[in-house]
Amino acid sequence: MDISTAQVGRQQELTNRFNEVRQLTLEICEPLQPEDFVVQPVVDVSPPKWHLAHTTWFFEIFILKKYVSDYRLFDDDYPFLFNSYYENEGDRWIRSERGVLSRPWVKEIMAYRSYVDDSMLQFLKTTELNEEQLNVFEIGLNHEQQHQELMVYDIKHILGINPLFPTYKRSNLPDYQPNLKTNWLRVDEGVYEVGYEGKDFHFDNEEGKHKVYLPGFQVQDRLVTNGEFLEFVEDSGYGNFNHWLMEGHEWVKKENIRAPFYWIKEEGEWFYFTLGGKEKLNLDEPVTHISFYEADAFAKWKGMRLPTEFEWEVACKLHSPEIPAEANFMDSRNFRTMPRVGANPQFYGDAWEWTNSAYLPYPHYQKVDGALGEYNGKFMINQMVLRGGSFATMANHIRPTYRNFFHPHLRWHFTGFRLAEFT
Amino acid sequence: MDISTAQVGRQQELTNRFNEVRQLTLEICEPLQPEDFVVQPVVDVSPPKWHLAHTTWFFEIFILKKYVSDYRLFDDDYPFLFNSYYENEGDRWIRSERGVLSRPWVKEIMAYRSYVDDSMLQFLKTTELNEEQLNVFEIGLNHEQQHQELMVYDIKHILGINPLFPTYKRSNLPDYQPNLKTNWLRVDEGVYEVGYEGKDFHFDNEEGKHKVYLPGFQVQDRLVTNGEFLEFVEDSGYGNFNHWLMEGHEWVKKENIRAPFYWIKEEGEWFYFTLGGKEKLNLDEPVTHISFYEADAFAKWKGMRLPTEFEWEVACKLHSPEIPAEANFMDSRNFRTMPRVGANPQFYGDAWEWTNSAYLPYPHYQKVDGALGEYNGKFMINQMVLRGGSFATMANHIRPTYRNFFHPHLRWHFTGFRLAEFT
Amino acid sequence: MDISTAQVGRQQELTNRFNEVRQLTLEICEPLQPEDFVVQPVVDVSPPKWHLAHTTWFFEIFILKKYVSDYRLFDDDYPFLFNSYYENEGDRWIRSERGVLSRPWVKEIMAYRSYVDDSMLQFLKTTELNEEQLNVFEIGLNHEQQHQELMVYDIKHILGINPLFPTYKRSNLPDYQPNLKTNWLRVDEGVYEVGYEGKDFHFDNEEGKHKVYLPGFQVQDRLVTNGEFLEFVEDSGYGNFNHWLMEGHEWVKKENIRAPFYWIKEEGEWFYFTLGGKEKLNLDEPVTHISFYEADAFAKWKGMRLPTEFEWEVACKLHSPEIPAEANFMDSRNFRTMPRVGANPQFYGDAWEWTNSAYLPYPHYQKVDGALGEYNGKFMINQMVLRGGSFATMANHIRPTYRNFFHPHLRWHFTGFRLAEFT
Amino acid sequence: MDISTAQVGRQQELTNRFNEVRQLTLEICEPLQPEDFVVQPVVDVSPPKWHLAHTTWFFEIFILKKYVSDYRLFDDDYPFLFNSYYENEGDRWIRSERGVLSRPWVKEIMAYRSYVDDSMLQFLKTTELNEEQLNVFEIGLNHEQQHQELMVYDIKHILGINPLFPTYKRSNLPDYQPNLKTNWLRVDEGVYEVGYEGKDFHFDNEEGKHKVYLPGFQVQDRLVTNGEFLEFVEDSGYGNFNHWLMEGHEWVKKENIRAPFYWIKEEGEWFYFTLGGKEKLNLDEPVTHISFYEADAFAKWKGMRLPTEFEWEVACKLHSPEIPAEANFMDSRNFRTMPRVGANPQFYGDAWEWTNSAYLPYPHYQKVDGALGEYNGKFMINQMVLRGGSFATMANHIRPTYRNFFHPHLRWHFTGFRLAEFT
Repeated sequence: MDISTAQVGRQQELTNRFNEVRQLTLEICEPLQPEDFVVQPVVDVSPPKWHLAHTTWFFEIFILKKYVSDYRLFDDDYPFLFNSYYENEGDRWIRSERGVLSRPWVKEIMAYRSYVDDSMLQFLKTTELNEEQLNVFEIGLNHEQQHQELMVYDIKHILGINPLFPTYKRSNLPDYQPNLKTNWLRVDEGVYEVGYEGKDFHFDNEEGKHKVYLPGFQVQDRLVTNGEFLEFVEDSGYGNFNHWLMEGHEWVKKENIRAPFYWIKEEGEWFYFTLGGKEKLNLDEPVTHISFYEADAFAKWKGMRLPTEFEWEVACKLHSPEIPAEANFMDSRNFRTMPRVGANPQFYGDAWEWTNSAYLPYPHYQKVDGALGEYNGKFMINQMVLRGGSFATMANHIRPTYRNFFHPHLRWHFTGFRLAEFT
Repeated sequence: MDISTAQVGRQQELTNRFNEVRQLTLEICEPLQPEDFVVQPVVDVSPPKWHLAHTTWFFEIFILKKYVSDYRLFDDDYPFLFNSYYENEGDRWIRSERGVLSRPWVKEIMAYRSYVDDSMLQFLKTTELNEEQLNVFEIGLNHEQQHQELMVYDIKHILGINPLFPTYKRSNLPDYQPNLKTNWLRVDEGVYEVGYEGKDFHFDNEEGKHKVYLPGFQVQDRLVTNGEFLEFVEDSGYGNFNHWLMEGHEWVKKENIRAPFYWIKEEGEWFYFTLGGKEKLNLDEPVTHISFYEADAFAKWKGMRLPTEFEWEVACKLHSPEIPAEANFMDSRNFRTMPRVGANPQFYGDAWEWTNSAYLPYPHYQKVDGALGEYNGKFMINQMVLRGGSFATMANHIRPTYRNFFHPHLRWHFTGFRLAEFT
Repeated sequence: MDISTAQVGRQQELTNRFNEVRQLTLEICEPLQPEDFVVQPVVDVSPPKWHLAHTTWFFEIFILKKYVSDYRLFDDDYPFLFNSYYENEGDRWIRSERGVLSRPWVKEIMAYRSYVDDSMLQFLKTTELNEEQLNVFEIGLNHEQQHQELMVYDIKHILGINPLFPTYKRSNLPDYQPNLKTNWLRVDEGVYEVGYEGKDFHFDNEEGKHKVYLPGFQVQDRLVTNGEFLEFVEDSGYGNFNHWLMEGHEWVKKENIRAPFYWIKEEGEWFYFTLGGKEKLNLDEPVTHISFYEADAFAKWKGMRLPTEFEWEVACKLHSPEIPAEANFMDSRNFRTMPRVGANPQFYGDAWEWTNSAYLPYPHYQKVDGALGEYNGKFMINQMVLRGGSFATMANHIRPTYRNFFHPHLRWHFTGFRLAEFT
Repeated sequence: MDISTAQVGRQQELTNRFNEVRQLTLEICEPLQPEDFVVQPVVDVSPPKWHLAHTTWFFEIFILKKYVSDYRLFDDDYPFLFNSYYENEGDRWIRSERGVLSRPWVKEIMAYRSYVDDSMLQFLKTTELNEEQLNVFEIGLNHEQQHQELMVYDIKHILGINPLFPTYKRSNLPDYQPNLKTNWLRVDEGVYEVGYEGKDFHFDNEEGKHKVYLPGFQVQDRLVTNGEFLEFVEDSGYGNFNHWLMEGHEWVKKENIRAPFYWIKEEGEWFYFTLGGKEKLNLDEPVTHISFYEADAFAKWKGMRLPTEFEWEVACKLHSPEIPAEANFMDSRNFRTMPRVGANPQFYGDAWEWTNSAYLPYPHYQKVDGALGEYNGKFMINQMVLRGGSFATMANHIRPTYRNFFHPHLRWHFTGFRLAEFT
């Protein structure tokens, strides 16, 4: 197979994925009312209609406008409205005010999606893309998949802060037998290789196989559960500053935090808001919606610690090199975390795992020129790395080298953790 | 006619008004998309769906819940969501966060309105209301009419801060000949009576005919126009602190104010956002969307001043005791200000007029007990009185004694002014 | 006596006052340590050394720089540092940051004072001032006297928020018999004259005798006491929103206010911080350090109200036209409030009295051109008028027409109130 | 020598250091006026008198109160006033409000120092301290030395934001020949040992020799100079977002940053504020007073990067294992940075160097129980590591393993950097 044929095959495969990805975005929105598409309860959340438009803008700007000579923008104001943070693409509407724009309304944005989808498919049908173009196209697909996950976070937030606790979608939970036994997975002291090496899609921030020296350690083979975290809550864990980083405890006091986000105590009983509405707290599920600070405090309360991102990656590669069949991703449309059920270590899906690694560049990291260079690199400060993936992540995003990152106080996303200790 | 018959007549009349008022609220919303009902660009603006629900809540709480023994609330959570500021009615959702609630969505709120409308009409059909009940009912109608006007302010704001400048409704302007000649209306020094005296509906804050001593003065017989205000703008009026109250000039600098709200300068030409979209600035119309600070600064720049609320009231009663036929109110569904056209003084409609009077109680003002006592009295600090009425005011709200009031920096409502001077 | 002689006499008299006033400012500072001169606990308080310099700057800029041809500024940077709010005098150091400047240190500012004093006396000795110059000179003296009073407020604040509660100066209280009996002073309905008329010094904001119409009313003949206010506190007055203006109650909740400023409850007993240190609360003294909101809430709790500024002025002129011998001013160096002791109505001294009048211009008020026009006029918004005078006011500032003004939430100054009601 | 004798020797040595350290703190304050001891221009700066008291409090609380049975606190309120952030030691005065406290004034704090010094010396004379006590004593000395350095930062800030630009102390610069030639120091790929191993004093955060794997790299043998940084400034480096981390560029825009802190451009010429007053910018000195963001942006503009803390440590140990004679520390009382003059690499003194390492725990890091466990560990989030030492650091604090840490936006301390690249 010569390169050109490979290219053509890749173009066809990506085109198929394009159709699927664009469709899934709409599927995620199906349970919403038009009013749900508009609001922005906090700056970190974007209105769903903004996601719908921004993911479309990405293809319009980085492919259609750039490579289709006679392409006409759907609307000259949209680049200003739907650019997120790409300084190289010019001025944009301020992020914190996305929720004050009622227009364009959802139907207009749906028309925008159709227009761009049609233009993309026309372009893909009539043009053989070169490698650079295919690469940008593939980034666009991964970009939209990342936003699909963000949309699930944001939809949950929009519904979850509403005193009416509306239901997004009830999940039919399989009849499972949770396996809460914890095994410790050991890794011996030594030099290990980390980072992405291969030919498949990956982000620039995970690129570059390189060596790290790790002391001997062990990590739990599953995520910490709601039941385990509840013990911390009920032991006044939030009130004892000795468990906390100073900025973490200041955050707890200022925001009056007493439990994971979405937990509700009513008449002595614990509930939590799920995408299926308000439910009795399920003690067997992994705890989610906790900040790095809370994960770290829990670990200290236990006399342990969080793993670093490299410890996580090495343990994962050693102990769970293949994604097990029961892993819980967006592909299952399950929309909730699951307890560990089989004997397999739980490394993929369910909830992102906070690590005790700051988000910093790998050796030889080099951002690309232009707007796409802003994708990951400019965020490498003040954030902590998460590994693994959540139930809202697509399976094709899951790999042991994937580096997610968030500020340590955030917890509207599907976050959990496991414990580590030196051996 | 005995009292009971009068009561019955009043009940019938108020019931008719109830139907009209409830219907007009919906008519105001007709041009909106569902997304427009949700947003709250600034704290002073409420989402239209909130107004729809809050005006309904008023009848539910102050009439149905109180007087209908077997009445069931439409939804137990709604009183928490739709109480505005009535401390006596219990806790409520915080005002500044009204725009983060996507639910109840518009259709649910429409169902709420229907439920309460039906319950009200049933109650009115089967019960002869006593005087206290009729009074509360009438307050409820006036309350909803006040919110109709607020809704027009808020809708304009929601659309006007959107870079797409959507159209609410184009007005078909009659073919008019503006009359921009200014006459001065004189009032001699002396003791005058002000305040409401009569038997018709009025608010507690205007109650109590009482005497005031006025020095000799004169006021303009029409509102200041866009063209006149433009001279101030182009004379660097915003930049010269000598025209301004200190807090006004601090506001100008902090908010970077350079013209009335909704004015836009593009390539040397002035436009403004109207409910009909972005238009070329009409120089003959009354200037609107100015704060008290701007009105006051303009007056000082002219070497004049704003009238007090009593000067306004006395001049109005003397020189324009009847509402002229061409007055421009919500009843005309015109939805924009109009220049003065005939020879009549322009005292009613078009735009509320800032006065140089602080909003304070009249002699013998006494708030009623309970929640309705919170209607006006607790706002009597740090606000300035406006008189007259705007094109979004219903004719039956217009009277020389009506006292409107806002904080001096606000300008999203339809505000204008006239000048005064001592003789 | 021809005008020139009168002028000369006035110049001599003002020169004598100059020496006294400048001296008193230093006397007020005597109990301070250098460190006390520097701090600014809140924006409303200025460091004492700033007052020392600013009052000096006033003479330097408005007299020496303007009228002495070869005058050299003491330091070219000082006008920038010590201008308060006179926009016409150019840029200035931001008010809220006065407390971050350790330099010029106190000794340098003392040298500045000496330099300006010497230059002033030299100028006064060698030049016969014209009327305009004498007027500015007199304003300068009154200006410094106003700052003397502010200095006492600010010193009390600086010491009072310190957990060590340092003593400024213990007052030797005379052996008095408080007279807590309240008489009501009646004023009949009618037209009255208010405002300053005369030839002595007065501020522009009180100028212009004019007529007002007052309904019949009566006011208390003394100030409300600590003991009376304590009843309100202990009746949960701060917790019952029905007594409060809405903005007042929001302030109470946000600032967690539970008693007048400087009141301290320890183990069930009430203390307060005085300029003599922490003491047991004296129930017979007038309550002070209350905001307008608290005064207003107390009045509503009593079923009464605060007088307007005109009611206060007319009642004062009718019932206490002369300042009684026992009035308590700065001249006595007493430095604390006193209970009413004799039978005389208590209208002057002890504590400024909040009225229910907004600070607005009198008819025909005209600010002068230039910087001195900024003295009073630009503050006529969002403030409430206080009448009377405090124990930190000089006797020659006390007159029935004097209008003091502050924002309604402030209470670090010596504020009290009396009640009024209609008859 | 038996252990006890070693102990005694150590006690004597520490006692001698106690006398020296306590004396140097006073020496640092000598040029100050009392007013300079009080102010706090920003939250990160503490008033010098606070440092004087806090360093004293440390000995009082952790030694005298704990180990001297009949010890009486100098003042029962001081622990509340002078605890910094030790939650285990109870409530404390809020950090951001240290500058509003005029009392205790400097003389009282000097008395506090004397009292504690006397008590300490008495205790040291009469008691043979056990190892734990000696350790705490030594921490106290190092603690005060750290505060000595902070005091120099804070004094510079207090004087430097004052428009009068007062002089702290002029340094007599030696007649030097700067050596601006840059050599690159190479380190080969491999496993290296980092972290403190030894028996001398060190902090818990540097403890634990452990291995790291480093890729091959090289670092500059001296710090980046003012002249080099000026090129970045004049190439509009602050304006080009492509050089910046996103949070860095937001900080630049929000704070309107255009040059290193203390740089001043006047009529086209560059000056900077030094402890000797305002001077012409010395192009040969290391650039200081830059945030991590600025150092990082400069490196990216150069196409290079900052070293990690381990790269720095390994390069330092390899290429400059001994502190060279010309190193510039507090011991010289020089009070300013110096260009590199000899041929030696410049690794110690002059300015702390930002690294691209987040401040995180070393393997096996374990904080001690109680208040002293709060010394370092609870800050391990959102901060970046600095290595080396500044001209305000004492020589006995300088070692290749010392980890300093600050938030990335801070720059009032003496910060610089060197560049690195992979080989």
